[in-house]
Amino acid sequence: MGDLKEQVQPQKAFGWAARDSSGVLSPFHFSRRATGEKDVTFKVMYCGICHSDLHMLKNEWGTSIYPLVPGHEIVGVVTEVGSKVEKFKVGDKVGVGCMVRSCRSCDNCANDLENYCPKMVLTYEAKDYDGTITYGGYSDNMVADEHFVVRIPDNLPLDGGAPLLCAGITVYSPLKYFELDKPGMHVGVVGLGGLGHVAVKFAKAMGVKVTVISTSPNKKKEAIEHLGADSFLVSRNQDEMQAVTSTLDGIIDTVSASHPLLPLIGLLKTNGKLILVGAPDKPPELPIFPLLMGRKIVAGSMIGGMKETQEMIDFAAKHNISADIEVIPIDYVNTAMERLSKADVRYRFVIDVGNTLKSNS
Amino acid sequence: MGDLKEQVQPQKAFGWAARDSSGVLSPFHFSRRATGEKDVTFKVMYCGICHSDLHMLKNEWGTSIYPLVPGHEIVGVVTEVGSKVEKFKVGDKVGVGCMVRSCRSCDNCANDLENYCPKMVLTYEAKDYDGTITYGGYSDNMVADEHFVVRIPDNLPLDGGAPLLCAGITVYSPLKYFELDKPGMHVGVVGLGGLGHVAVKFAKAMGVKVTVISTSPNKKKEAIEHLGADSFLVSRNQDEMQAVTSTLDGIIDTVSASHPLLPLIGLLKTNGKLILVGAPDKPPELPIFPLLMGRKIVAGSMIGGMKETQEMIDFAAKHNISADIEVIPIDYVNTAMERLSKADVRYRFVIDVGNTLKSNS
Repeated sequence: MGDLKEQVQPQKAFGWAARDSSGVLSPFHFSRRATGEKDVTFKVMYCGICHSDLHMLKNEWGTSIYPLVPGHEIVGVVTEVGSKVEKFKVGDKVGVGCMVRSCRSCDNCANDLENYCPKMVLTYEAKDYDGTITYGGYSDNMVADEHFVVRIPDNLPLDGGAPLLCAGITVYSPLKYFELDKPGMHVGVVGLGGLGHVAVKFAKAMGVKVTVISTSPNKKKEAIEHLGADSFLVSRNQDEMQAVTSTLDGIIDTVSASHPLLPLIGLLKTNGKLILVGAPDKPPELPIFPLLMGRKIVAGSMIGGMKETQEMIDFAAKHNISADIEVIPIDYVNTAMERLSKADVRYRFVIDVGNTLKSNS
Repeated sequence: MGDLKEQVQPQKAFGWAARDSSGVLSPFHFSRRATGEKDVTFKVMYCGICHSDLHMLKNEWGTSIYPLVPGHEIVGVVTEVGSKVEKFKVGDKVGVGCMVRSCRSCDNCANDLENYCPKMVLTYEAKDYDGTITYGGYSDNMVADEHFVVRIPDNLPLDGGAPLLCAGITVYSPLKYFELDKPGMHVGVVGLGGLGHVAVKFAKAMGVKVTVISTSPNKKKEAIEHLGADSFLVSRNQDEMQAVTSTLDGIIDTVSASHPLLPLIGLLKTNGKLILVGAPDKPPELPIFPLLMGRKIVAGSMIGGMKETQEMIDFAAKHNISADIEVIPIDYVNTAMERLSKADVRYRFVIDVGNTLKSNS
């Protein structure tokens, strides 16, 4: 695929790329396709750093293609639209999340679930339908079919809004689909990181009672006082966990590190739902009896479709929800990755692409 | 609890019991409570042999109390009703399934889910609220609160109807709850035993397309020609399994033996549901990525509530569904258990209690 990657496209682009599985990012000149009939080209203002960027940079899932420009929490301002674009005009604030293409004809696409389309194309390091490799948002510009572009409402901050495009939809979608969004319900959120802290905010805005479940007792104050969680459980404290057996309608589990499911299943009421949105490398054991005894569900969920992503962004704007972020300049990105690998961020790094990414060429 | 078990109650009863974890059954004289205000007493005509009877006889789940009179697929004819019984009269055909008591006040009970009540009392070898130990249907008579008694419609055969009270509701309930009962859907049934063969019949009657998934290629003819399944997959045949990837809306997995979940999850469409109704001793591995990639569910389900059990029996009668059975005399029961442990039965043993259980005393 080397030929394809180096194919010169009409629109110049400049970003930061990893060249190999060391994952070190450095400045990278490349190009993007011309703005097609249905395409939107935009100047990137901010791009969130997702934990999966780190996995991809280091080829930890074995699928990475180098040079690799990461970034799938991308917001910016439209600079050009194709002749058949209907939803956007120059100057609009827009965003692109985890995907930039799908077949638009399968059952999933027909049901607004482009995220589950077998031919879905990821925003970076994937092969697009024209054979080119996709590049993400650690970059000065972006081109995408308008179907995969969302509108960012005026009152949503661009920097804190960027992470919603991956972290936000990842937790919003299962709260909706699994019907954990009903006022008065009681939902657990496992892990208080980039995804978890947004899950707390969405669930609270939906009128749901939220319990944060974490290995870190020192996150309690923050979870309750700052994020508005109703209660906090230290997952390693068996007494604390046992005391609230069978009290949760559902759990959004955002933790990718291996962890046992049994204690979480025990927190669920009859018909309770444990929704996994992180994927541990090693499959955990599934205790069957506890599932049977309460008709409980363990399920997975992965981002969301485009219609729902727009709905999520609009919901966030309406309820003043954005991610808690640390804004960094692009030349801090390698340090940020190191800190991210140690979970040393509250709760999401966002690169100030618009102000700090400058090409010398 | 020895004292309690030997407490003499007003109604004499005679059945077959295991005395220890050898599991060997032999004639046993015992007693049951008098017919209470809300109780129904009935002469047992038939009792199905469930695979869990075998586990219980041998104390394989570590909860058995001896002497143990098994049987929770019990049908018979009412001989006495209490003064406040409203639903039944002497001469009615009735059945009792897996439970005989629940608290009637918790959320589960309030939602007709007595089967998930934390204080639910099993039909045998459980401690009832009055402190006595419950005895099952390998017995000449039965006493139960009318709430836990179902009416057997006239056109449902008593012998083939008996297994529906456990095997039937175990598969009917998840087909309904998980919405796998919609005409035109495509559902897999894993394992063609006591539960599986009834699952095929119910699903077909619901208008669902059914694929049987089994380790035994020699069950194909029977599954398709006799039970009416639409297709048959040999689970160990990887080519066959791969050819139908992502085609099923749901799967009812009736197999208690350990088996990998990944190949089954692969058969599911987006939003597909793998419902486990058997409980392997050893928890299987749960592959998370395949769940995420298609928003798939793995869930458990255990029998059903009383309202739904009556609904299931009425549905069976309406659609002429009963279990395929081998009727045996009570003195064949130990041989039947041996054959059951080798899966040598198509598909359920039913004891002809009414005609073959005779007390010598």
